[in-house]
Amino acid sequence: VGSPKLGYTQSRGEDEIVERIRHTLGGGIEAFGLRDDAGLLEVPGGGSLVVSVDSVVDGVHVELGLCSPADVGWKALMGALSDLAAMGARPVGALVALTVPEGEGDGSVTVAVMEGVAEAGAASECPIVGGDLTSGPVLVVSVTVIGTVDGGDPVTRAGARPGDVVMITGPCGGSAAGLRKLRAGSTVGPVVDAYRRPVARLGEGVAARLGGATAMIDVSDGLALDLHRLADASNVGFALETVPVAVGATPNEALGGGEDYELLLTMDAMCIGAFVRACEAQGLQQPVQIGVIRDDTATRTCNGHELARTGWQHRVG
Amino acid sequence: VGSPKLGYTQSRGEDEIVERIRHTLGGGIEAFGLRDDAGLLEVPGGGSLVVSVDSVVDGVHVELGLCSPADVGWKALMGALSDLAAMGARPVGALVALTVPEGEGDGSVTVAVMEGVAEAGAASECPIVGGDLTSGPVLVVSVTVIGTVDGGDPVTRAGARPGDVVMITGPCGGSAAGLRKLRAGSTVGPVVDAYRRPVARLGEGVAARLGGATAMIDVSDGLALDLHRLADASNVGFALETVPVAVGATPNEALGGGEDYELLLTMDAMCIGAFVRACEAQGLQQPVQIGVIRDDTATRTCNGHELARTGWQHRVG
Repeated sequence: VGSPKLGYTQSRGEDEIVERIRHTLGGGIEAFGLRDDAGLLEVPGGGSLVVSVDSVVDGVHVELGLCSPADVGWKALMGALSDLAAMGARPVGALVALTVPEGEGDGSVTVAVMEGVAEAGAASECPIVGGDLTSGPVLVVSVTVIGTVDGGDPVTRAGARPGDVVMITGPCGGSAAGLRKLRAGSTVGPVVDAYRRPVARLGEGVAARLGGATAMIDVSDGLALDLHRLADASNVGFALETVPVAVGATPNEALGGGEDYELLLTMDAMCIGAFVRACEAQGLQQPVQIGVIRDDTATRTCNGHELARTGWQHRVG
Repeated sequence: VGSPKLGYTQSRGEDEIVERIRHTLGGGIEAFGLRDDAGLLEVPGGGSLVVSVDSVVDGVHVELGLCSPADVGWKALMGALSDLAAMGARPVGALVALTVPEGEGDGSVTVAVMEGVAEAGAASECPIVGGDLTSGPVLVVSVTVIGTVDGGDPVTRAGARPGDVVMITGPCGGSAAGLRKLRAGSTVGPVVDAYRRPVARLGEGVAARLGGATAMIDVSDGLALDLHRLADASNVGFALETVPVAVGATPNEALGGGEDYELLLTMDAMCIGAFVRACEAQGLQQPVQIGVIRDDTATRTCNGHELARTGWQHRVG
């Protein structure tokens, strides 16, 4: 889960702390699971599951003044499900750990958050199979999702090859624009919905996996930063040729806003036609080509200019 | 996860809020998962997994002044694993969602918490397969655990039958006594270890399942409250004949302290001998008989006197 913080860059961001956790723990921990959007869990008797956990903290990822408790529940589950989508997995279940402020007297915030979780679960065909409820100084919703690739291989961030086409499942910046408009007093419109009720691209992720995607990531921290991360993991460069901007959003919001949950993926140019037709036939988002993967890892351009690593890094450290 | 709060009873505790969530959400949510210690997840291709999530919040479940960040990580994973133990499951993986205070400048608390998680994972043969890191006003460690019963049936709270024997895997109150001693300035000794480094009874849980346990629960919220919950779920009563008190603890701490993670279980008297021998052969805790299950649901006694529902209910509402 990211959050719109335009132009936010920090010296000691999440990526660095996670690397330190990996180095410090060494073999004592199998995988901290943050190299890709989700981790893999081998299941006794064969097969593997795709698992991920994601937290929403009031005041960090959301502002309860700008969206309802039910919106927070919706966003928390959808943000976690987006990590499954980015691996090409479909959900089989979710667990919700809820920390609710102590002053919340009658349980109504708790119940409203869970209503939003249940709505998002119903919209995504994801049953809620476990929960934990506790009190604390601030609302924290941590969601663990468990998914399957039905015997196939999940798509990681690391498989992009020079010459692959870069595609995205929809325009970006809508969520950031929605937050901007909410802060300015507007409470309706498609970008407000994009902020309050984002949708994980689960169908598109499965279609991309089946359609030959070589690498995939969800645009949770901004198109620019997440494209850099995909290129880092794949050890390649890229030439971004166009920035798909959501109606009502600015180009900067599209590049650095985050929380759009569109899927950014790479595939051989030969595969595009069948992938786009498969999405159309299923009534899914229409993916578009926005760039190409380059061999030189130092090539990281947008319309010929160097693309900054601008985006949301969680404020840890 | 519970926490020692002796004699603490509240009008609107966790049990009631969870019931309201279930009522409000109805069919929109498959199971909130809190009736038993863990939920069941059907896996594509057959089989099922046992899943649970549990949170530790600084100032609510732990006091960072009385234990180290590594202790908090250890306690968080062990608390979640105890829910698997209570179903007779063994762990296959865990995910950790970490919220760390923003002022924590160099990432050292984050790394220390994860070191404790890794130590508990190594001690329990539970790989950490995913994580999320974010900032917030207070330390929150939410752990999701995934386990298996290897094709068998998990043990729930609901199967106790009149005439069954009530057993427990060890004496209670050590964790509460440890907290009391830490608050008084003591920093060493077995009860301090019981508070800082509790151990989930995973081997004992599997042995109980294989040995014919009809119902099981972990003593995370205190022997009295958890025995009432087991009896509620099974629609039976009980006669507690003895209260096993840890060395250094008081009888009240044993009954109402919580966070001991001993397993409270019921089984036919015919099964006890083989179960105890199986534990002995594997070098596990030695289970002891502490009471019997009664047909009359209103019979809830300890040495002939009514047993109060004293124990830790999370301070929500």
